[in-house]
Amino acid sequence: MLDTLIKNAVVIPMTEPGLVLHGCSIGVGDGKIAYIGSECPEAAEVIDARGHIVMPGLINAHAHTAMCVMRGYADDYPLKSWLYDKVFPVEARLDERAIVAGAVLGMAEMIRTGTVSFSDMYFCQPAVAKEVERAGMKANLCNAVLALGDNYDFDSDRAVKETRVLLPEYGNSGPIRTDIAIHAEYTSSPAVWQRVHEWAKEYGVITQIHLSETRTEHEEAKARHGMTPAAAFDKYGVFDTPVLAAHGVWLERSDMELLAARGVSVAHCPVSNLKLGSGMANISAMLRAGVNVCLGTDGVCSNNSLDLFEEIKLSALLAKGETLDPTAVSAYEALELATVNGARAQGRYDETGRIALGLDADLIMINTDSPHLCPVYDPISAVVYSARGSDVELTMVRGRTLMRDGALTTIDVESAMREVAEYAMPIVKGE
Amino acid sequence: MLDTLIKNAVVIPMTEPGLVLHGCSIGVGDGKIAYIGSECPEAAEVIDARGHIVMPGLINAHAHTAMCVMRGYADDYPLKSWLYDKVFPVEARLDERAIVAGAVLGMAEMIRTGTVSFSDMYFCQPAVAKEVERAGMKANLCNAVLALGDNYDFDSDRAVKETRVLLPEYGNSGPIRTDIAIHAEYTSSPAVWQRVHEWAKEYGVITQIHLSETRTEHEEAKARHGMTPAAAFDKYGVFDTPVLAAHGVWLERSDMELLAARGVSVAHCPVSNLKLGSGMANISAMLRAGVNVCLGTDGVCSNNSLDLFEEIKLSALLAKGETLDPTAVSAYEALELATVNGARAQGRYDETGRIALGLDADLIMINTDSPHLCPVYDPISAVVYSARGSDVELTMVRGRTLMRDGALTTIDVESAMREVAEYAMPIVKGE
Repeated sequence: MLDTLIKNAVVIPMTEPGLVLHGCSIGVGDGKIAYIGSECPEAAEVIDARGHIVMPGLINAHAHTAMCVMRGYADDYPLKSWLYDKVFPVEARLDERAIVAGAVLGMAEMIRTGTVSFSDMYFCQPAVAKEVERAGMKANLCNAVLALGDNYDFDSDRAVKETRVLLPEYGNSGPIRTDIAIHAEYTSSPAVWQRVHEWAKEYGVITQIHLSETRTEHEEAKARHGMTPAAAFDKYGVFDTPVLAAHGVWLERSDMELLAARGVSVAHCPVSNLKLGSGMANISAMLRAGVNVCLGTDGVCSNNSLDLFEEIKLSALLAKGETLDPTAVSAYEALELATVNGARAQGRYDETGRIALGLDADLIMINTDSPHLCPVYDPISAVVYSARGSDVELTMVRGRTLMRDGALTTIDVESAMREVAEYAMPIVKGE
Repeated sequence: MLDTLIKNAVVIPMTEPGLVLHGCSIGVGDGKIAYIGSECPEAAEVIDARGHIVMPGLINAHAHTAMCVMRGYADDYPLKSWLYDKVFPVEARLDERAIVAGAVLGMAEMIRTGTVSFSDMYFCQPAVAKEVERAGMKANLCNAVLALGDNYDFDSDRAVKETRVLLPEYGNSGPIRTDIAIHAEYTSSPAVWQRVHEWAKEYGVITQIHLSETRTEHEEAKARHGMTPAAAFDKYGVFDTPVLAAHGVWLERSDMELLAARGVSVAHCPVSNLKLGSGMANISAMLRAGVNVCLGTDGVCSNNSLDLFEEIKLSALLAKGETLDPTAVSAYEALELATVNGARAQGRYDETGRIALGLDADLIMINTDSPHLCPVYDPISAVVYSARGSDVELTMVRGRTLMRDGALTTIDVESAMREVAEYAMPIVKGE
C-alpha cells in the first residue's frame, strides 16, 4: 500500500516541454514517487488536490541562507559600502548561534514558498547541516575559501577546517551533501584553487564559485590573467570536475561556450544582480549556447526574499525585456531553471527536479483557487506569471510533508523568528 | 467619537522621505483621517495593529482591469501575434457581461493586494463604474478613442459614445471619475486628438494616453510627424490640460524635459514592458528630469498580476540594474511611485496617497509576522523589498474596510471567479 496518494491534481511533471497531466494521481511510497496515473491506488493518506497544481519542488541553486539575519539591513547602498561597511563587519560579529538562527529562519521561508533543496555557501556549515537534517530539506552546503592577504595560510583557514569536517561526514550523496567552494577569482589565487580542486577529485563533490558577477571583477580579472575569470578557472583545472558558478552577469560569448563544453552550471540570480547594480545576465544566450542555467536567490541581504517564484517570473521577464523579444525564455523554460536544471547543478538529476517514477517525492501543491490565479488557461503560464510563494499549500521532501496550509511540521516558526529578532538582530546592529 | 482607531501601528505616512512613526494611532472619522498621534482617542471600532505596518493604499495608475478574463491566455507570443491574433479578436467577442466579470475579478485582486484606486482604460465603462461603486474602490475610468481607418466617424465611435455618457455623470471629482483617452499617437490623428481634447477643457478631466511604449511605435511616429510622439501631442495642444501617459519606455531626454515642464505624469509599467519585450523605461532619468512617475500593472494579459507590490520592487530593482547603480531609485522613491505620485497623476493629490489629517482614510495594513518579513530593520525597506500583496491584511477606502484577513466585504470572490470561469472563459476561447 502507498503511504500517500495525491489525487485529482493538475500535474506539471517537468519531464517534457509543455506537458500537463489533468485529473492525475501521484502515489508516494518509501519517500519515492511510486505511482503516476489516472487510477487511485490504495494509500494510508489521501490528499485531494482538486483546484491545485502539483509540480516538482523548487531548487535554489545559490543561497547564503543565514544572511536572513541581515534582511533589509543594508539596502540602497553603493556596492563597496554595502560590502565593506555593512556586510563584512556584521559577518565578523556573527557567532554560530546567530548563523544557525538565520539558516533556520531561511529554511522556514523556503519551505513555505516551495523550495525543497538549496545550494548554500556560508559559515558554520557543520552546525547548519544538523538543522537542515532536522528541517527535512535537502542541501549542498559549502564554506567558500577566501584566500586574501599575503599571510594567508590554507590550513588555518576557517573555511578549510569546516570543509575538512564536512567532507568525510556528508560527501556527495544523500539529502545533505558537502560541496567545496572557491569564493571567486578575485578573492584567491590559482595555487589555492588547485588545493581546493584536489578535494573535488578526491571526494567527487561539486565546486561552487562566484563568477563574473560585476563588470569590475570581470575586467580586473582580464587585466590580471590576460583572460576572463572563466578561462582562468578552466586553465587551472577547476572545471575538470563539476562546477556550479553563481551569477555570470558579465560572461562573454566565448565564456558561455566554454561553460557549456565543460558542463559548468550557472546559477542565475536576477533579483540580486539588479539590486546590487551588477547588471543582467544574458540567460537567453547562455541557454542557446547549451549552458545548464539554474536559479538562485543569493543572500537575502541583496534580495530581500527567498521566494523562488519571484526569480522564476523575473528570469522570463528580464530575458524578454533585455532582448526586446517576448518569446525569449518561455514559461516552461523558466520553470526548468528552478527544477530540472537546478537538480542537474546539484548533482541530483536522477533524484529530484521532476515528477517521475522512482525519483524522490520532492513536490509542491499550488492552490489556484484565488482571484490572482483565475482563470487558468495554461497551468504552466499560471505558475510562472501569476503564482507566488504564498500560493504553495503543501511542500513535500522525500515523501515527508514539511508544510501544509502554511503550517510547518519540522520548524517552529514563531521561535525561529524570535531567535533572529532577539538574539541575532542586536549582533547585526552592533548593540 | 471616531469611527475607527488603528493603534500600536508602525506608520509610513509618505509625507516626507524616510519618515516612519512607531507606536502610532490613526483615527478615522467620516471617511477621513481624523487623528494621527500616540494617544488612543475613543472610537467605535479599535484595531490593534501591533506587528503591522500601516501605509497609504496603493494606486494603480494604468490598468485594463477587465483583461483579467484573458489572464494567461496569450503568453510568450511575438507582440504582433499577441495583439492581432489573440487580444484583438478576443476583445471583439467580449460582451458587457464578460467585461464586467473581468473588472469585478480584477477589483477583488486589487483590494486583496492593497490597491485602493486605479486608472482604467477599457470598454463598457458605464457598466464597470456601477461595479466600482459597489466595490467601494476609487477609479479614473476612460474608454480610449482609437481612430483607425479612412472611414472613421467620431460620432459613431463606441468609445466616444461611452465617454459622452460618462462625462456628465461622473466628471472630475468624487471616488469615481471620468477621464478621457486618446489610445496612442499611432492609432489616431491630430484632428481626433483635438476633438478629444475639447472634452478635457470642457469638463476639466485628465487625458490618458499610451506613449512611446515600443521602439517601433516611437520611431514610426518620428518618421510620420518629424518629431517624437510626446512632441507631437504637445504641438496639437493635448498637454495643455493634465495628462497621464502610460509606459514611456522609449522617451528621449528632450521628451522627459517636455513632460516635466508640461506636468505630464508617466505611468511606469515595468512588468508589462518586460513581458511584451517593449524594453525598460528609464525612470531614474525621468525622476531626475522632474517627471511625476507613477506605477501601473497594465492589463493582466501582459503581466499576469495586479499586485502592485511586484511593480514597486521591480521599479527599484530595474532602475539599479539598468544604471549599474544600487543607489538608483531608493525604497522610499519606489513607494512614492505607488502612492503620492499616483494620487497626483489621478488628480487626487489632496485626497489620497498619504496618511495626513483631512485626507480620505485610504490605507492598508501589512502583517509583518511572517518568516519572509523577519527581521525588520527598516519598515520602508521591508515593504518594498520583502512584502507581497498577500501580506496585506486590511484594505480601507474612505474609512470603509473592503478587506480584512483576506475576506472581502464588498465582492463575493467565489461568484466573481465562477462568473469568469463559466461565462467569460468560453468567450475568450471562442467556444
